[in-house]
Amino acid sequence: MCKGFSCTVLPAKEGSGVSYLAVDIGGTSTRAVVVEADGTCTGYATAGSGNPTASGATAAAAAIASAASGAMAAADVSPADIEAAVAGIAGANGPAGVALREALPAAGLGVELSLMSDVLATYHAGTLAADGYVVVAGTGATAARIRDSRIEATTDGLGWLVGDAGSGFWLGRRVVRDVARALDGRGSPTTLVELLLGEFGIDATPERARDGRLVALQRMIDAVYGSRPVDLARFARLAFDAASDGDETAQRIVADAASELSVTAAAVVSPDVSGPVVLGGSILSQRTVAERVVEAMRRAGCDGPVSTVPDGLVGSAVLALRRAGVTLDRATFDRIGASLATLRTR
Amino acid sequence: MCKGFSCTVLPAKEGSGVSYLAVDIGGTSTRAVVVEADGTCTGYATAGSGNPTASGATAAAAAIASAASGAMAAADVSPADIEAAVAGIAGANGPAGVALREALPAAGLGVELSLMSDVLATYHAGTLAADGYVVVAGTGATAARIRDSRIEATTDGLGWLVGDAGSGFWLGRRVVRDVARALDGRGSPTTLVELLLGEFGIDATPERARDGRLVALQRMIDAVYGSRPVDLARFARLAFDAASDGDETAQRIVADAASELSVTAAAVVSPDVSGPVVLGGSILSQRTVAERVVEAMRRAGCDGPVSTVPDGLVGSAVLALRRAGVTLDRATFDRIGASLATLRTR
Repeated sequence: MCKGFSCTVLPAKEGSGVSYLAVDIGGTSTRAVVVEADGTCTGYATAGSGNPTASGATAAAAAIASAASGAMAAADVSPADIEAAVAGIAGANGPAGVALREALPAAGLGVELSLMSDVLATYHAGTLAADGYVVVAGTGATAARIRDSRIEATTDGLGWLVGDAGSGFWLGRRVVRDVARALDGRGSPTTLVELLLGEFGIDATPERARDGRLVALQRMIDAVYGSRPVDLARFARLAFDAASDGDETAQRIVADAASELSVTAAAVVSPDVSGPVVLGGSILSQRTVAERVVEAMRRAGCDGPVSTVPDGLVGSAVLALRRAGVTLDRATFDRIGASLATLRTR
Repeated sequence: MCKGFSCTVLPAKEGSGVSYLAVDIGGTSTRAVVVEADGTCTGYATAGSGNPTASGATAAAAAIASAASGAMAAADVSPADIEAAVAGIAGANGPAGVALREALPAAGLGVELSLMSDVLATYHAGTLAADGYVVVAGTGATAARIRDSRIEATTDGLGWLVGDAGSGFWLGRRVVRDVARALDGRGSPTTLVELLLGEFGIDATPERARDGRLVALQRMIDAVYGSRPVDLARFARLAFDAASDGDETAQRIVADAASELSVTAAAVVSPDVSGPVVLGGSILSQRTVAERVVEAMRRAGCDGPVSTVPDGLVGSAVLALRRAGVTLDRATFDRIGASLATLRTR
């Protein structure tokens, strides 16, 4: 909060117990914010991956404690000031949640953190409505129907190996696959070849190995298997870049991802829930994909308003306030979003 | 060789140097055979996985030594009798080959084993022709054009994560994916649900977890991520079983696999090589798939005869004899196949 010499320190409200802590735990980064009962966000901080599946439970808990402590320090509050704390995380009720609940006490956070579904957090980042839909497509992909502020039905979200159709991983894997097909003669030429080999720092030479395979292709494959599968998600943006430059292979990849996400989203639509619809994650921040998904939900009978959110942090704040019995009105909800946006741009 | 009490021990030909050792290294099992210059196979043995990628280099080398020693013991020859030894293995010129070459000396085999491409071994298990094609679809999938008994061009064979389209892994993963889609409402009902849940020992109850997901689906997903990705290959046969029983989802999976393999196979066809075509691996032992692949190769201009082989062991024997300067005629080639088949049924 204090930059340079002119630093105004606000009077500390020690042990006042009127602040709330919200955390959004992701596989790449973890975000934390301290919020007051009127929705004003007073401190924000980030740290690395807080997902135990991605980085191990001890490292994940340390990252979460770091982000949370940073947010409390920025808000000038102590753990004793925190009335309720909620974190949204993928797999909150599965092995990831179990591992994190075991590891968190040793991380020295000083606050009891309730782990809740990141899908529910993302939903409440976009709306206060008790009934509606949420579609999330980041590294993974899932959709859910919310009724009475609980998840009633879920589609996909089944991980990189057998699910997450249309996700960042799905797109990145497909980029690598289609580049491999172009290089060994099974597929059409595509500008993705140059883009992807560039990411790996590999020259596209015509040299072939003893097994008749292009050396450039073999080097790319060795690099791919030398990393974690989920790391392929970073190549998703190449598909969007090449598609907007007119590459047909990339356009087909993006269209297929939109089609997969449309099936995932439409399958949760029920005739007695009209909306709203909250879209979250980097893939759904792509307008062409979001439009296709919303069209599919409309065809399935959902006609509520649509909002797009960057992550589940606002929703975790909503869930923390509600957990402490605070009734949120529209003005409070909007204040969370606006004041968090201000803190994020600092 | 000696079972029970009436055991005839043939006179040992110590240090005669007129025997040859052939090994076929697979991810599931390793097969070894001792062959004489006239093509007569005199000893056969098997062991576990000899692929260092699947089981680690030390365990792989030990399995190879076990199979090879077993074959030599069965043939009643010693390492000093072996004039040349060849093993076919996937990735012979890649990291798997490097790891195995380092680990083999410590395994106490007593014979210098030349590692060669399993694709070349499979090709020569079906033909003595210097020019032709080979398509292999087992756990993985690849095709190659052979010229002057060397691999001139290769398609796919790029591993489970980004390649091996139409392989056993590809089919097994697709079975799990389509069962998940049927269970969460994204896909059509299929008899594969009952078959696959049965494999995992999971009851298909209608009970749902807090996140709205079927408990049976979540248990299946937890089991899938608790195993190695390549283990999904064991579910490939469910697709063939359900397809032959008329299940439409399974029929689509099998048709898509055949289509992928057809693309892989057709892409290696060159106008100046007419054939023969050798098909290997469990997926190409399925008649419907093999027919589709051969049709695609015919359309691409290949009109040579087609043969199907169970693995690359006969081909490794061909390569071992050739390595020692033995010129193989048709009678010798046929004798390898016939005498090996006899040993295998013992």
